[in-house]
Amino acid sequence: MYEHSVRVPFIVSDPFRRQRACGSARRHARKTDLSQKKLGDTLDPQKPRPGMCLRLQSCRKYLPFMNKILVLFDSKTGNVAAMADLVAEGARTIPDTEVRLRSVDEASAEDVEWCDGLAVGSPTNMGVLSWKMKRFWDETMAPHWMKVDGKIGCAFSSAGGWGGGMEIACQSILTILMNFGFLVFGVTDYAAGAMTAHYGAVAAKAPREESAQAACRLLGKRLAEWTACFCHGRKDQNPLVKPDPRIAPG
Amino acid sequence: MYEHSVRVPFIVSDPFRRQRACGSARRHARKTDLSQKKLGDTLDPQKPRPGMCLRLQSCRKYLPFMNKILVLFDSKTGNVAAMADLVAEGARTIPDTEVRLRSVDEASAEDVEWCDGLAVGSPTNMGVLSWKMKRFWDETMAPHWMKVDGKIGCAFSSAGGWGGGMEIACQSILTILMNFGFLVFGVTDYAAGAMTAHYGAVAAKAPREESAQAACRLLGKRLAEWTACFCHGRKDQNPLVKPDPRIAPG
Amino acid sequence: MYEHSVRVPFIVSDPFRRQRACGSARRHARKTDLSQKKLGDTLDPQKPRPGMCLRLQSCRKYLPFMNKILVLFDSKTGNVAAMADLVAEGARTIPDTEVRLRSVDEASAEDVEWCDGLAVGSPTNMGVLSWKMKRFWDETMAPHWMKVDGKIGCAFSSAGGWGGGMEIACQSILTILMNFGFLVFGVTDYAAGAMTAHYGAVAAKAPREESAQAACRLLGKRLAEWTACFCHGRKDQNPLVKPDPRIAPG
Amino acid sequence: MYEHSVRVPFIVSDPFRRQRACGSARRHARKTDLSQKKLGDTLDPQKPRPGMCLRLQSCRKYLPFMNKILVLFDSKTGNVAAMADLVAEGARTIPDTEVRLRSVDEASAEDVEWCDGLAVGSPTNMGVLSWKMKRFWDETMAPHWMKVDGKIGCAFSSAGGWGGGMEIACQSILTILMNFGFLVFGVTDYAAGAMTAHYGAVAAKAPREESAQAACRLLGKRLAEWTACFCHGRKDQNPLVKPDPRIAPG
Repeated sequence: MYEHSVRVPFIVSDPFRRQRACGSARRHARKTDLSQKKLGDTLDPQKPRPGMCLRLQSCRKYLPFMNKILVLFDSKTGNVAAMADLVAEGARTIPDTEVRLRSVDEASAEDVEWCDGLAVGSPTNMGVLSWKMKRFWDETMAPHWMKVDGKIGCAFSSAGGWGGGMEIACQSILTILMNFGFLVFGVTDYAAGAMTAHYGAVAAKAPREESAQAACRLLGKRLAEWTACFCHGRKDQNPLVKPDPRIAPG
Repeated sequence: MYEHSVRVPFIVSDPFRRQRACGSARRHARKTDLSQKKLGDTLDPQKPRPGMCLRLQSCRKYLPFMNKILVLFDSKTGNVAAMADLVAEGARTIPDTEVRLRSVDEASAEDVEWCDGLAVGSPTNMGVLSWKMKRFWDETMAPHWMKVDGKIGCAFSSAGGWGGGMEIACQSILTILMNFGFLVFGVTDYAAGAMTAHYGAVAAKAPREESAQAACRLLGKRLAEWTACFCHGRKDQNPLVKPDPRIAPG
Repeated sequence: MYEHSVRVPFIVSDPFRRQRACGSARRHARKTDLSQKKLGDTLDPQKPRPGMCLRLQSCRKYLPFMNKILVLFDSKTGNVAAMADLVAEGARTIPDTEVRLRSVDEASAEDVEWCDGLAVGSPTNMGVLSWKMKRFWDETMAPHWMKVDGKIGCAFSSAGGWGGGMEIACQSILTILMNFGFLVFGVTDYAAGAMTAHYGAVAAKAPREESAQAACRLLGKRLAEWTACFCHGRKDQNPLVKPDPRIAPG
Repeated sequence: MYEHSVRVPFIVSDPFRRQRACGSARRHARKTDLSQKKLGDTLDPQKPRPGMCLRLQSCRKYLPFMNKILVLFDSKTGNVAAMADLVAEGARTIPDTEVRLRSVDEASAEDVEWCDGLAVGSPTNMGVLSWKMKRFWDETMAPHWMKVDGKIGCAFSSAGGWGGGMEIACQSILTILMNFGFLVFGVTDYAAGAMTAHYGAVAAKAPREESAQAACRLLGKRLAEWTACFCHGRKDQNPLVKPDPRIAPG
């Protein structure tokens, strides 16, 4: 049983309750590097530790883990970069979520290690992710293989036109993420009338239409919902129990 | 060396030359079941045979093989049926091409055996071809496995929306066709501004936009071009040497 | 097929607590339908509820959620059925895990709704899952689409030989599971020298070699570990922190 | 790497014509660059041309087109290089076939333009082709897109173990080849008891077992058969009509 759900009387998951968190906790949280906590760390209530406010400890309250999302992308024309912004925007709508947005040129293995979940975007180049994004996983990440299992992953891609291979490029990204032991997903909901992201968010060229933008945001939101739910026990974030409307195909 | 290219003085591949074909040849062609000719049959110039007009024989002329295209589809809502019509329409633009359009409910193994090339369409059901189309290949066609290698194949599919898995469903169709030893292809050209068919023709719901319709026609045309070129030695039908404009991504 | 609930009616995840489990808990567990608990249910420590032993409640101990695994398979020759047994066997090694083993002929939508995670096995038929397994998702499960998101899924398949499409058939299963909103995964670890299950467990014909058997067991074990970890907050079951040896490629 | 052109300078596809080949033809063939012939070139019987022996011309015999196969590979450990050798060996068993064997480090776009058919091999890196092979198609070949349609392609890959993603890596290669307008295929036949190459030839580590070696050879042979049959009209090379035994799954 996940101890937070029982012992932690406040989960800083909605802004109103967050405001009631004591000032020292807020100050402490700012100073403490929560990102050092590893998945699977056990909480020992007997001694102080990173992520615990001393004052909270005395009243048996714990700071929750921060929900950590990485949006990693490669972009030559700016189309995938625009999608990445939207995915990040969607992830940030989930309370208590920290989002790192990194291009493949600046990303490091530490970014991947840090996150609970990640969305990986690439241009559709010949129906497969770009060689630069592939190189990141082949070279930068290879030494970390077998050490980062269990993160939650998803994909997004833009091609020159519909039928241009964006779904298959997303699939190639998901293949890589599965190889690293990640759990990968797509979005069941529709983002708009004739747009969804069942295997990742897709766009023909730039995500100009509102529907393509909504699909990107929805992907990021769902990613942060699943990590909140699965990695941090915030089962209120499960899309099946949230009151948010979910668009069915029309 | 392909004997047609040397010995056959007329290839009935353009309408003007076709009109010059002698009347008896045309009448004979109507009566002769060209579909009985099998890929790999060798021509023996010494004796009459199906597909040869006696009068032509005397002047050392041979009727060309008929280019044979099967468009096989499953459709519940009519969307894929509409695509199938367009694919067939595209195939018929190639001279000397016979097209069979068959729903999976009426198709038989003989239809597949008959054709030089086939386009297989299915609704995108959960990201994969429909179970009914799968059953056709699992059950109806299984006894013919290892007996129909070398046909040329392609795919088309409609999903409820973009990002709904139509490309991945096309891929599942192509996987099946490859298993039967077929050579599968997609279309490089764009059908219109932001629409192509790199892994098969795709549509979100019905192919209502002109661009989706053009992609279906282009797929059928390319299929008939490749079979004409590869199965019947009509190298004038190679899209690389045809004068037809080819749309690049824009 | 509730083997576990008979043999191990009250399991907690560490052996010491198991020994302290009182008799009434065991009796209570037998009477309580833990499978009625839904993902997202919150625990209210103030009142008794299904799954809580009254005597345990008084001493502030809670019955854990039962970890629920479905192994769903189609098999014509018995090869995939043999794999399914091994996958189920692997899942049962994780404490507090209930396993349902169902052939596609006997499975119902309720089985899928019930589980936290599922492993789906099919023969490799023409490189894609069998039409019967496809029909299950197309017809039996279709009305439940958008209602079962967030389960954890994986795949297994047997083909007639290596290179016969078993990995691609696993991919077709994963595609379907993703369409339903499931989070899908493969196993990073090697099961033996030259055998792993990066995209699902695979076998050439029957899983006769020890290595193929180990891969099936490993897949089932990993599935139950992820559901324990993600759905029930049992972070001790995260493979990254468990003491179990993990075989690297050699 | 023009092994064939040295050892078999003048090959015609049937043994009787081979015996009649005159000495000047053999000398001529050595001097003539047959590789300059493009798919779709038409033969003009009126005037001499490259690839035609003058003496042969006078007696109405034509030098056949040379069947041109490229085996392109990336290899870090030597495993895929070993597979490439075997694929090339298989292709050379088809008379009148010239084989170029090129590592991705030495290959140029001209090699791809030159060939009728190509087999592309890559290590399975995270379930997808290597970034270096991807870069070849993304960068070296991109300017030639829409100019090389209609070649015949296939794939091969080695992973660290069965279930390690070699089939899915082959699929990623085929996806790229399809994007370039190639027709891609797999082998229906079994290479040995439990080994085939339905989506390309696969190996776990090095191709040490005779069965894995046979699968590589079979892939190369089939590739050269299809190009002979489809690109050069040598319908005697169609595997359906050849007397060679074809192994069914056992």
